[in-house]
Amino acid sequence: MTIEEMKDRLRPGLKHKRFVHSVNVMETAILLARKYGVDEEKAAVAGLLHDCARDIKGEQVFKLCDEMGIETDYITRAQPELLHGPIGARLAETEYGISDAGILDAIRYHTTGCERMSMLSKIVFIADYIEPGRTFPAVFEARKVVYNDIDKAILMSLEKTVRFVMDKGTLVHPNTINARNYIIYERRNKAK
Amino acid sequence: MTIEEMKDRLRPGLKHKRFVHSVNVMETAILLARKYGVDEEKAAVAGLLHDCARDIKGEQVFKLCDEMGIETDYITRAQPELLHGPIGARLAETEYGISDAGILDAIRYHTTGCERMSMLSKIVFIADYIEPGRTFPAVFEARKVVYNDIDKAILMSLEKTVRFVMDKGTLVHPNTINARNYIIYERRNKAK
Repeated sequence: MTIEEMKDRLRPGLKHKRFVHSVNVMETAILLARKYGVDEEKAAVAGLLHDCARDIKGEQVFKLCDEMGIETDYITRAQPELLHGPIGARLAETEYGISDAGILDAIRYHTTGCERMSMLSKIVFIADYIEPGRTFPAVFEARKVVYNDIDKAILMSLEKTVRFVMDKGTLVHPNTINARNYIIYERRNKAK
Repeated sequence: MTIEEMKDRLRPGLKHKRFVHSVNVMETAILLARKYGVDEEKAAVAGLLHDCARDIKGEQVFKLCDEMGIETDYITRAQPELLHGPIGARLAETEYGISDAGILDAIRYHTTGCERMSMLSKIVFIADYIEPGRTFPAVFEARKVVYNDIDKAILMSLEKTVRFVMDKGTLVHPNTINARNYIIYERRNKAK
C-alpha cells in the first residue's frame, strides 16, 4: 500500500483534526529520520499510522483487545486511551499490511514510550509531541533541542508527562518510567 | 529474640545516627500500628530492622546479592542503595530469626514501596519518612495527614520522591510508580 492509499484508508476512521495531526507527525518524523539516519519511508508510515486506533472509544476498545489478544491491567482498564498504541499496531498489521517489527513497535509504544526504544520509536514518540500543530509551552523547548539531542527532548517530554499525570492524580504507565530510566542509562554509557 | 536483643545486635552494624533513626522509626511504626489496627510487635520489629543493611557499602552489596540470590538490574547496579531493603529482609531472616513474611516484605520494600503494599508495609514506609528526626519541609505536611489518611501521606511521599529523583536526573525505581498507581487504584475502589 502506498502512503497515499494509507491516507485514504486512515481518513474515515479519524476525526478531521486527528487526521491532520497524523500527517503532521508523518512530516516531522521524516525530517527527524533524515537527521538521525533512519529509513524515511518507515518513519513516514509509522508517523502516519501511529494514531490509527485513537478514535476507537468505549467498550469497543476492550472488545478489540480481547479479539487481538492484547492484555489489559488495572492501569489500562482505568485509562483505556493507553491502549490505542497496542491496538493501532495490530490494525497497522491487519488493515494496512505492515509487517516491519520496528514500525509496529513505534506505533505500539508511541504514547507511553518503553525501555530500549529504537531510534525509529524515539522519532515517532517525539514527533507526536512536537509536530507543528502542538502549541503547549513545553513543546517549544523540546523543538529547540530535538535536532541536536533527541534523547534530551524525549526525556523532557517523558518527565513533563510524569509530572502532569501526577498533578492530575491519574496513573503513570510503568513504560513511561522505564523509557526515561533507560534513556538516562544509555546516555551515561555513551558518556563513559 | 527480644527487641532489646535485636537492638544490641543492630547497633554495631550501623552508624550511630542510623541507629537512632531506626529506633525512631520503630516508635513511629508502633503508634501507627495502634491507629491502623496492625500488630504492634510486628510493626516494632520491622521498624527497628528496616535499615539493618543500610550501612553495607561498595562491592559488599553486590557480593551479598550474589550470595543471597537477590537479582540486580541496571537500575540497582547504578543505585546500589536501592538494594538495602532486599538485603535487609534477608539479614532479618538469617541474623535476627524473623520468619514472618509481612515483616520481611515491609523491610524489603521500605525504600521503593511496591504494588499491593500491606498495611504493615505502608506503616514502615511512612514511619521511615516522618519519624521525629526528619526535618525536611514536606515531612510536616505528611505528619499532619498520616493519622487520618495514611494512603494520602504515602502518596505525598512517593510523588515527592519521583519529582526529587527526576530533578536529580537519577533513576526512578519502577516499584515506586507501581506503589503510587496501586494506592490510587485502591482509593478509587474504596470511594465507589
